[in-house]
Amino acid sequence: MAKDKKPRRPKAETPKGFRDYFGMDVIERKAMLDTIAEVYHRYGFDPLETSAVETVEALGKYLPDVDRPNAGVFAWQEEDGDWLALRYDMTAPLARVAAQFRNDLPSPYRRFTMGPVWRNEKPGPGRFRQFYQCDADTVGSGSVAADAEICAMLSDTLEAVGIPRGDYIVRVNNRKVLNGVMEVAGVLDPSDPEKFEHERGIVLRAIDKLDRLGPQGVRALLGEGRKDESGDFTDGAGLSEAQADIVMGFMEAKRDTGAETCARLRELVEGSVVGGEGVTELETIAELLDAQGYSADRIEIDPSVVRGLGYYTGPVYEAELTFEIKDEKGRPRQFGSVAGGGRYDDLVKRFTGQAVPATGVSIGVDRLLAALRAKGRSGGVEQGPVVVTVMDRDRMADYQAMVGELRAAGIRAEVYLGNPKNFGNQLKYADKRNSPVAIIQGGDEKDRGVVQVKDLYLGAKIAESASLEEWKSQPAQYEVPRDDLIAAVRKIIDGAEG
Amino acid sequence: MAKDKKPRRPKAETPKGFRDYFGMDVIERKAMLDTIAEVYHRYGFDPLETSAVETVEALGKYLPDVDRPNAGVFAWQEEDGDWLALRYDMTAPLARVAAQFRNDLPSPYRRFTMGPVWRNEKPGPGRFRQFYQCDADTVGSGSVAADAEICAMLSDTLEAVGIPRGDYIVRVNNRKVLNGVMEVAGVLDPSDPEKFEHERGIVLRAIDKLDRLGPQGVRALLGEGRKDESGDFTDGAGLSEAQADIVMGFMEAKRDTGAETCARLRELVEGSVVGGEGVTELETIAELLDAQGYSADRIEIDPSVVRGLGYYTGPVYEAELTFEIKDEKGRPRQFGSVAGGGRYDDLVKRFTGQAVPATGVSIGVDRLLAALRAKGRSGGVEQGPVVVTVMDRDRMADYQAMVGELRAAGIRAEVYLGNPKNFGNQLKYADKRNSPVAIIQGGDEKDRGVVQVKDLYLGAKIAESASLEEWKSQPAQYEVPRDDLIAAVRKIIDGAEG
Repeated sequence: MAKDKKPRRPKAETPKGFRDYFGMDVIERKAMLDTIAEVYHRYGFDPLETSAVETVEALGKYLPDVDRPNAGVFAWQEEDGDWLALRYDMTAPLARVAAQFRNDLPSPYRRFTMGPVWRNEKPGPGRFRQFYQCDADTVGSGSVAADAEICAMLSDTLEAVGIPRGDYIVRVNNRKVLNGVMEVAGVLDPSDPEKFEHERGIVLRAIDKLDRLGPQGVRALLGEGRKDESGDFTDGAGLSEAQADIVMGFMEAKRDTGAETCARLRELVEGSVVGGEGVTELETIAELLDAQGYSADRIEIDPSVVRGLGYYTGPVYEAELTFEIKDEKGRPRQFGSVAGGGRYDDLVKRFTGQAVPATGVSIGVDRLLAALRAKGRSGGVEQGPVVVTVMDRDRMADYQAMVGELRAAGIRAEVYLGNPKNFGNQLKYADKRNSPVAIIQGGDEKDRGVVQVKDLYLGAKIAESASLEEWKSQPAQYEVPRDDLIAAVRKIIDGAEG
Repeated sequence: MAKDKKPRRPKAETPKGFRDYFGMDVIERKAMLDTIAEVYHRYGFDPLETSAVETVEALGKYLPDVDRPNAGVFAWQEEDGDWLALRYDMTAPLARVAAQFRNDLPSPYRRFTMGPVWRNEKPGPGRFRQFYQCDADTVGSGSVAADAEICAMLSDTLEAVGIPRGDYIVRVNNRKVLNGVMEVAGVLDPSDPEKFEHERGIVLRAIDKLDRLGPQGVRALLGEGRKDESGDFTDGAGLSEAQADIVMGFMEAKRDTGAETCARLRELVEGSVVGGEGVTELETIAELLDAQGYSADRIEIDPSVVRGLGYYTGPVYEAELTFEIKDEKGRPRQFGSVAGGGRYDDLVKRFTGQAVPATGVSIGVDRLLAALRAKGRSGGVEQGPVVVTVMDRDRMADYQAMVGELRAAGIRAEVYLGNPKNFGNQLKYADKRNSPVAIIQGGDEKDRGVVQVKDLYLGAKIAESASLEEWKSQPAQYEVPRDDLIAAVRKIIDGAEG
C-alpha cells in the first residue's frame, strides 16, 4: 500500500513559556547550585529530592498570587481517577514528606532541595512557566533561632555565589507584629480569627506592593481602592483614614537600628498580645544575629517586608539586591528580591492534624544568575575543545588517537566529525565552538612526523588588528613534532587562559 | 461563621510509582552525574537542558516498549487546546532542539544532558514512573567514527564512575546487518519497505529478549508464538523453520574476535546491499576502536544486541555489567544492561523534512547506582554534622557562635534547635544524624572557659564492646579549653574518617 498523503510535520518549538538552556547557561547555573548546596550542607542541612509529580490533594491550594485567578498548576487525571500535578514550589512537597516520614526523620529536620518548579501561568516576556528554586527549611523547631539561622545562612550564601557585602540586604519582619497592628487597627478580632479575613488579605497584598505603588498607591488600596494606569480598578480593603494611618505607620516604622525599630513597633502594637509576642521574637532574632556579627549592613529589621504568601505565621524574611541595573528601556532600577521565606507553622498540620513548626527560605536561582550577569560577574563564553581536523578521511584512527592523548592529558578535545571535504568548514566549525587550537595533519606532515598547531585566538587577533611586523614575529600556525603535540597545545591554552 | 464540618485531611503520600530521595541517595547520584558530565565534557560534548514539558506533537510516538499498549506519557490539554506532556526520554527533545535551532548550533552538534524523564506506566516493584537519564548524542555526523567515539566514551564513563574493566562490556551491532538478514530471510523487501513491518517488529523484540527467554523462547516467537508461565500467549512472527534458522544464525554469529564475527556476518547477509553496508560499518568501528586500544575486553561486536527501539537505523550499542548479583530471592543473576543507544537518522527529519544523521547513548543512572551499591562500592552512610547541644536556652547566641566558628573552619556543624529541656533527646538526635561529635557547655563550663567534647563514634564503640580497661584509657567525653574547640573537634573527625 503506497501512501500518497504526507503526514503533517510537527512544529519544532519549545512550548510557550518554556525554554531551553545551552552550554554556559547550564554550566553557570550548576556552579551556582553547587555553591549554594555547599553552604546549606555546612549548616547541617540534608539534601532531599522529591518527585516532580504530586497528588493535587497533597499540593493543596497555597499558590502565591491570589490576585490572578487563572494562576494554577499543571494537572491531569489518572486512569484510576486520581489527579496528579507538577509541583509549583518546594514547600508543599516538603510538608507532605515531613508528614509521610515523620517517624523516620530526625526532628528538627533541616533539609535543602533544588530543582525546577512549574506554574501554569500565562507566559509573558521574562515570565517562564518552569524555573529553578533552591530551598532550605527547618521543620520541627519553634525556636526563632531557626529563623535567625536561615537569615544568616542566606547572607553567607549570597556572598558565596558572588554578591559582595553591601550589594544585598536581608530584611526581616514578623507576621505577628502585622497581626498586632491589624488588631489595633480593628481588622483582626482575636476571638473570631476568620472575621475580616478578606480585608486582611487586601491589606497584606497592598503592603507587599509598596515598592511598586509607593505610599499613595498603598493607601488607596487600604481605603476604597485603586485605579491603575490601564484604567483597571482594584477593590480596596475599605479601611477608614484612622485605620489606614495605623497600617501606614507600621510600614514606616523602620529606624536606624534594629533596637529602635523594635521599640517603635512595640508602641504600635500596644494592647495586642500577639503583636507584643512578635516584637519580642524580632528582638531575639536581632540579638542572635548581632552576637554572630551579622550587623545591619547584612541583615536588618524592616517592617515593610510582608511576603505575599498567606501561610506565613511568624518571622518573614527577604533578600534584596541593592545595586542598580538598567531595565529594558535603559532606565536605572533596583534589582530587587532574589530570595524570601518565613515561618509557616500550619502546612504539615494539613496532613496530620498536629501543628509542626517550620521555617524556610527559597532562592530564585534564575533571578540570582541574571543579577550576576547584569553586574558582569558571570556570563562569559566557555573556551571550546581543541579541534583535531580531518585532512585524510582514511586516517580517522590517527586523529582519534590524537584526541585520545589530549583527553588523557586532561585537555578537552574532539575530532571533526562532519564532512571533511571542505577544510574551510572545519575551521569555521572550530570558530563556532570557540576552540583555542586546531590541529592539522595531512599526509605530508604524517610522513615527516609532525603536526600543524593553529592558535585560533591569536589568529583571530592578528586578523583583526596586528601589523605585518607582529604577524611575522608571532605566527598563529606552526609545526611541531608529533610527540610534542600535548606540550604545544597546553602552552597555547595556558596562554589563552592567563 | 463558625464551621463545624472538619475538612477531610489530604493523604501524605508520594503518588504511586514515584519516590523521594534522601540525603546520601541525592549526594551519590549527584557525584555520579558530575563524574559522567566531566567525561562527556572532556570529549567535547556541550551541556543542554531542555524544559521538562514538550508539546505532544513534538514528542511524537517513539515510546520504546510497543509491547504494552498502555505505555505512554503524562499529558494534559492547555486552555488554548494544545496538548502538553512530560518528556519520556531525552532523544525526542534533542530532535526538537536540533530542528528548532539548526541555524545556530554548530554542526556536528555534540551535546549531553541529564535529568528526570517520566513514563506513564503501571508502577510495580522497582518500576518507577520518574527516573534519571544521562544522554550524550552527536547530531549531524553520518560518520561511524561518531558511533565509535560514543562507544569509547561509554567505556571511559563506566570506569570513571567505578566499574572496573572486566566488570562491564560494551556490545556493538548494526541494524543494517539485521535488515540484511531480514532481507535474506524474506521478511524485508527493499522495493517495498513497509511490507512485513509487523513481522519485523516481532522479530526485533524477540531477539531483544534472548537473555530472558533463551534460544527456545526466541524461536517460538519467530514462529507461531509463545505461551509464558502465566499462560498468556504472545503472537509470533509466523516465520517458517528455514526463515527462523537464518535469524537464529544471525544471533549466534558471534566469534572470538571482531574480525571473525564480521566475516561470519558477511556470509549471512550475502546478496543484501544494506546488509553488506552494515558489516562494513561494523568493521570500521572495530578498527577505529582497536587503534585507540579499546579491545574486546571493553568493546566487542555482538550480533545479539538489537535494542528494542524502532527508530534505530545503523549501529546500536549497549553496556552490560557482567558481574553477578543476588536477586531478591537470593539467586545469582547477571546485573545486565545499564546503558544503550544507537544511530537514528530520521528523528530530526520529522520536523524539517531533511534527514539529519545522529547517534547517541543513554545511561540509566539509577540502575548504575544500584549496581555500584550491589557491589558495595557505594551506599555508605554520610557522616553527620557536629551537634552543639543547648544546655541553657538563654545562651543560644553562645552556641550559635560555636557553630559559626566550626563552619568557618570548614566543619559541618549545627546547633540543636528542638526543645532543649530533655538533654537525652539532644544526644538521641545527634545519633540519628550520625554526628561524629557533640559539644556540651553548661553554665559551669562557661564560667571555667571550657567545653565538653563527646566523641560519639567512640562512645558507640565503647558501649558496644569495650571492657572497663579500654573505657578508662580512652574516654569518649572530655573537657577542652573553649579556645581549643576547633582543634579538638577536628582531631576526632579526622580520626573517624581515617
